[in-house]
Amino acid sequence: MSLAGGRELVAIPGPSVIPDRVLAAMHRAMPDIYGDDLLEVSDEIYAELPRIAGMPADGRVFVTISNGHGAWEMAISNTLSRGDKVLVLESGRFAVTWGEMAAFSGVKTEVLHAPDRCPVDPAAVQARLQADVTHEIKAIFMVYTDTASSVMNDIPAVRAAVDAAGHPALLMVDCIASMGSEKFLMAEWGVDLALAASQKALMVPPGLGFVWAGPRALQAHATADLRTGYFDWSARTLEGAHYLRYCGTMPVSHLYGLREALTMIREEGLENVWARHAVLAGAVRAAVGAWATPGGFELNVLDPAARSNAVTTILTGSIDATRLSDICRVQAGLTLGTGIGDFVGKAFRIGHMGHVNPPMILGALGTIEAALVTMGAPIGGSGVAAAAAHIGGHLR
Amino acid sequence: MSLAGGRELVAIPGPSVIPDRVLAAMHRAMPDIYGDDLLEVSDEIYAELPRIAGMPADGRVFVTISNGHGAWEMAISNTLSRGDKVLVLESGRFAVTWGEMAAFSGVKTEVLHAPDRCPVDPAAVQARLQADVTHEIKAIFMVYTDTASSVMNDIPAVRAAVDAAGHPALLMVDCIASMGSEKFLMAEWGVDLALAASQKALMVPPGLGFVWAGPRALQAHATADLRTGYFDWSARTLEGAHYLRYCGTMPVSHLYGLREALTMIREEGLENVWARHAVLAGAVRAAVGAWATPGGFELNVLDPAARSNAVTTILTGSIDATRLSDICRVQAGLTLGTGIGDFVGKAFRIGHMGHVNPPMILGALGTIEAALVTMGAPIGGSGVAAAAAHIGGHLR
Amino acid sequence: MSLAGGRELVAIPGPSVIPDRVLAAMHRAMPDIYGDDLLEVSDEIYAELPRIAGMPADGRVFVTISNGHGAWEMAISNTLSRGDKVLVLESGRFAVTWGEMAAFSGVKTEVLHAPDRCPVDPAAVQARLQADVTHEIKAIFMVYTDTASSVMNDIPAVRAAVDAAGHPALLMVDCIASMGSEKFLMAEWGVDLALAASQKALMVPPGLGFVWAGPRALQAHATADLRTGYFDWSARTLEGAHYLRYCGTMPVSHLYGLREALTMIREEGLENVWARHAVLAGAVRAAVGAWATPGGFELNVLDPAARSNAVTTILTGSIDATRLSDICRVQAGLTLGTGIGDFVGKAFRIGHMGHVNPPMILGALGTIEAALVTMGAPIGGSGVAAAAAHIGGHLR
Amino acid sequence: MSLAGGRELVAIPGPSVIPDRVLAAMHRAMPDIYGDDLLEVSDEIYAELPRIAGMPADGRVFVTISNGHGAWEMAISNTLSRGDKVLVLESGRFAVTWGEMAAFSGVKTEVLHAPDRCPVDPAAVQARLQADVTHEIKAIFMVYTDTASSVMNDIPAVRAAVDAAGHPALLMVDCIASMGSEKFLMAEWGVDLALAASQKALMVPPGLGFVWAGPRALQAHATADLRTGYFDWSARTLEGAHYLRYCGTMPVSHLYGLREALTMIREEGLENVWARHAVLAGAVRAAVGAWATPGGFELNVLDPAARSNAVTTILTGSIDATRLSDICRVQAGLTLGTGIGDFVGKAFRIGHMGHVNPPMILGALGTIEAALVTMGAPIGGSGVAAAAAHIGGHLR
Repeated sequence: MSLAGGRELVAIPGPSVIPDRVLAAMHRAMPDIYGDDLLEVSDEIYAELPRIAGMPADGRVFVTISNGHGAWEMAISNTLSRGDKVLVLESGRFAVTWGEMAAFSGVKTEVLHAPDRCPVDPAAVQARLQADVTHEIKAIFMVYTDTASSVMNDIPAVRAAVDAAGHPALLMVDCIASMGSEKFLMAEWGVDLALAASQKALMVPPGLGFVWAGPRALQAHATADLRTGYFDWSARTLEGAHYLRYCGTMPVSHLYGLREALTMIREEGLENVWARHAVLAGAVRAAVGAWATPGGFELNVLDPAARSNAVTTILTGSIDATRLSDICRVQAGLTLGTGIGDFVGKAFRIGHMGHVNPPMILGALGTIEAALVTMGAPIGGSGVAAAAAHIGGHLR
Repeated sequence: MSLAGGRELVAIPGPSVIPDRVLAAMHRAMPDIYGDDLLEVSDEIYAELPRIAGMPADGRVFVTISNGHGAWEMAISNTLSRGDKVLVLESGRFAVTWGEMAAFSGVKTEVLHAPDRCPVDPAAVQARLQADVTHEIKAIFMVYTDTASSVMNDIPAVRAAVDAAGHPALLMVDCIASMGSEKFLMAEWGVDLALAASQKALMVPPGLGFVWAGPRALQAHATADLRTGYFDWSARTLEGAHYLRYCGTMPVSHLYGLREALTMIREEGLENVWARHAVLAGAVRAAVGAWATPGGFELNVLDPAARSNAVTTILTGSIDATRLSDICRVQAGLTLGTGIGDFVGKAFRIGHMGHVNPPMILGALGTIEAALVTMGAPIGGSGVAAAAAHIGGHLR
Repeated sequence: MSLAGGRELVAIPGPSVIPDRVLAAMHRAMPDIYGDDLLEVSDEIYAELPRIAGMPADGRVFVTISNGHGAWEMAISNTLSRGDKVLVLESGRFAVTWGEMAAFSGVKTEVLHAPDRCPVDPAAVQARLQADVTHEIKAIFMVYTDTASSVMNDIPAVRAAVDAAGHPALLMVDCIASMGSEKFLMAEWGVDLALAASQKALMVPPGLGFVWAGPRALQAHATADLRTGYFDWSARTLEGAHYLRYCGTMPVSHLYGLREALTMIREEGLENVWARHAVLAGAVRAAVGAWATPGGFELNVLDPAARSNAVTTILTGSIDATRLSDICRVQAGLTLGTGIGDFVGKAFRIGHMGHVNPPMILGALGTIEAALVTMGAPIGGSGVAAAAAHIGGHLR
Repeated sequence: MSLAGGRELVAIPGPSVIPDRVLAAMHRAMPDIYGDDLLEVSDEIYAELPRIAGMPADGRVFVTISNGHGAWEMAISNTLSRGDKVLVLESGRFAVTWGEMAAFSGVKTEVLHAPDRCPVDPAAVQARLQADVTHEIKAIFMVYTDTASSVMNDIPAVRAAVDAAGHPALLMVDCIASMGSEKFLMAEWGVDLALAASQKALMVPPGLGFVWAGPRALQAHATADLRTGYFDWSARTLEGAHYLRYCGTMPVSHLYGLREALTMIREEGLENVWARHAVLAGAVRAAVGAWATPGGFELNVLDPAARSNAVTTILTGSIDATRLSDICRVQAGLTLGTGIGDFVGKAFRIGHMGHVNPPMILGALGTIEAALVTMGAPIGGSGVAAAAAHIGGHLR
């Protein structure tokens, strides 16, 4: 017997659950791509995106038909030149991968590893930059939330470290897993370039990348020699023909979907969206805290302040993570994220970004708990009860 | 702040959650209604429906464009005549409403009430029928699961009572809330007529009614004088033109949806569907059991064996059911069923029929628990933990 | 080789082409049926429907979950009593079928046939009613547009005939094929009851019937003895609980679809909708006129003023209608309506009601012409050229 | 009054009409992107795409999340190095634009213009290549069908010219407007690299680019120094983790849509798809031929053998193309393609690629003819009649 015969819940850290409203908006006939209707959709998107990121008024946002890797490429190719050096602040997996992409194009990279299970250490950043007296380092790559480790880095603290070092390197932040789920204030925090993708908390199927460029990134663009035709910022002008914004045919379906997703965020209120994520992530952490036993479940990220509100990586200790996931998926209709990178076979992940609410989070946690009971796994107490109690503390 | 910004969960006892597959199947252009494609869909439906109900081989099933009230009308008008008497076995709300519809057409009705919070008492049925020495009573109306009280009646026991009384009345059973969610064996149990509607465990939006007629019901049809053109069985022949099955234009979108829903049931296996409902309903009951306190929550139905696997009515005692529902809906994205009929203001209901699985049920229960915490309501323990443990006992 | 591999065009006289907007509106999760959102949808529908029909202010409209046959039943059962007599004005096929439904319930019917290929003759109606000195006839059944013959009857002329006869019979008009496509002014024209269904010019999949009752029909309701619970008007009050309007669970998906369709009509303007149908029907007739040869194609309806704007029946003479339809459907992706009733094997039909525009009509006509060329059928000239010229005369 | 109130027909040369089946396939919840289901979809796509292009067995196909410009970039960056020279064979607009993208990355380009309104001249190509005794030219860029001019170039003839010159340059062909609509045999024709995009005859919304690389292109890749991380072929291995194929998160919705579109092509048969396009394009050309008058309409491409089966550019002479398009769109629901590049204000275009059939093509042509009548424009005869006759010659 399987109990899975209901609405499947995919709780991986992206692509996240797409709202029905977004899927419906994408399900439509192709319009005249030269017409005013599509242009209006595009205009709305270009008006909303800067607000989502707290972009400075003299910044610019670019929408590219690609995934997050394409956003990385756009960031790299528009700001860097062959032989430039980038300092990669690793705290999981994805900053390194981004750095590898830059290296492929002839950029020198140096990786500064965060301590195990910890976020980037601002002091270490400051020390490294202070040592770079010739300002060989042109840019710093970091992720806000790393979806492998579920570390959330302290961007303002890193910015302060850069400033304290008096270093001119561009601060470039990958917000793929966090844009729309975690508070992010690009201008106020002094971020020079931020990037994201559609399929996480922005609630649109994969297929769009986003880059927000602040004034210093735009300035670097002027001399970058890695620029390529497809991703080049200069050609992607808002003033000319509509297709220029997308370097060719527009991503019609995705634009309709994205417009709807951004409307949903605006209707809910961005601050409320962030607060909702914080409460629901707190519920997940409360559950893991209740389940935790020596040798059993454990949150990967040690410092409570550095835990992501978008994804949680749970070390499984002696509990068989593969069997847990299999039971959940096959028997109960819940798909969990697997451990990736260093975490293969040692962890699982719960995505809680985007279109999530208490029935979804508590449904996921309750189902995990049921599977733990099935397995006879050691647990300290009811995680789902702790999560419900946590959420109960935030309703009115 | 509201945490509702995710996938809304509507857990009312019908219309239940429609599977994406069914919604997708309904979203299509109108075909040629005289063509073979639609006929094939219709043929599949007429082949599957008898199996769902365990209909005898000499029975017939009718699909009508209507809601459940239309199925009632079809049952009444095809089997009864003005002046006939019907014994209405009430155990909640809906047998009486059905009886009122018959009375409107000139049928005499007598209501036999079940004891409070209890199912129909077979002994009382037997006694009443034995007293009807002239066999004035032509039919017995009862519901299998009453969605107001959440009582599940014991159909075989009532059948045995009728047989023990040696009474020829037709046994007619409303399975609107239970067809597809609770084990039902029309032929084996000696049911003469069963009826259902699309929007409950059959997982299709409201718009279709179903009547399964056994040989004795078909025989009664021959002399029934309440027959009307729209619902008349004789005209709804399977042999003639396709439109005859539906007394006019076919319910095209619903046929596509229903075919898909029946396919899903066949793929899962009807026995597994029933077993799934039983486990998930057990989880709901375990939760209420854990929450229960004197003066607080309580299952309405006293006898564990008479509790429905499709819906649960929970008496709320001193706990404000309206506020509970409001918090769940507005703050958390969960819509609960209200108490109806005698239960207004005294109960709420959880629908757990059709397209349901552990993440949905535990999500609903967890959210209710969160709201109870918010309200500071007295609860005996964690219901959602108990439910997760219950489900854990049925996974492998 | 087949050329059919594009968007299939089904040009049968209903179910007609459903707009994408309507299909999209129907593709949504079930809401709380007790909630305000659905009630608002329902309120909009009940506000729009009277306008579509030009209903008098003291009339009432009823929406029933059924097809058009159910609307017939609702009209019959709410206004008539056993033994009443109905005068059926036949001009094709459907008034007789409606009359047969009444006869099934014990109403006496008398059929007054229109001359072959002609509309109802008002003078004959007047003569028959004048002969009914005892006012045995309680109601007159007629269709506005008959989809078998494609006759459009002159409702005001029939009303004038009834008035001239000084006869009190209710004038009841089946507008199934015409509501929303042909000008209809219930109050101004003195119609006592009108009925329609969702799947024609109202652009919603089959599943809803509509009855507009004027004050005299409502008065007749008070004494009608054919009333049944499901269709009864008195119970379908707008004042009480929402479900009363639909005698049970609301047709949720269809309500969302119908709301959208009515919005589309309002946006376009009802007068424009009528005018659009008149021009496009004129194009179809121009095409047939151009194709016509002795022994070949011919419009069934002889009097130009009596030709429907919703459907056209074309007599095919020596041309093989079945082969024509097969070529169109299998080779070219166009489905035509077949001849029904008296027209089987002698005619085909083109539906041009609801969501139609020049590319659709000219596409259908051009494809028919291509098939005629293929068949080497005798044609007088290019029908599609004539149709294009006709439409060209109405663009600006 | 407007007659537009039906199904809008957008007949621009891409994005073309997306089949309902494809839109429906894209409308689904996000799956586990690490799961087998999505991998299976991906496998099917990678199995079908080589067949569509007649790719040699030792070639490879790459699917990139981008539009056609991204496919250009992928072709350029994987095969060329800074300082390489490309010979651009212009016959409209798009080869030059592709060449400009290469120039942006430091490639030298030389444009060889086709004679006005003519395809690429193979003799001129041969002459130019023979003059390149040092083999400075590393690649030849050409389009198969240019959507601006609607020229269809003779690829085998150009290949023969290259061979006759004994020149080793890679022959790279942009099939964006033609892949799936025109016969294309990459291996047989000796094409080294072909590219396409999803939104034309492949019937999927914009968002995917495709590159088919033959063995010589793959060989060039080994030394190309323009390679970038996002588009790099080596990393896009089929052997490793699924995400590698797409350089990151898969384009989930588009993969589902593409799989469905490729299934439709396979069901119809690729040869039939080509033949269908040829007949329908012939119908468009027959219409223009019938309309043509001195000073009026005229096909842009002079040589009948060089006219595309996917798009037709019509010079409008003294007829006001803007007014024509406005009447069609606003009054009749038909959107035509405008003249672009050199054709602005002098031409309009009809797209007839992908999901098209006689009702669509004849509907478009009939509507254009109606608008011409409205405008009192000079026309030689009925174009739509000629088109219907042409199609009639190809049905059975």
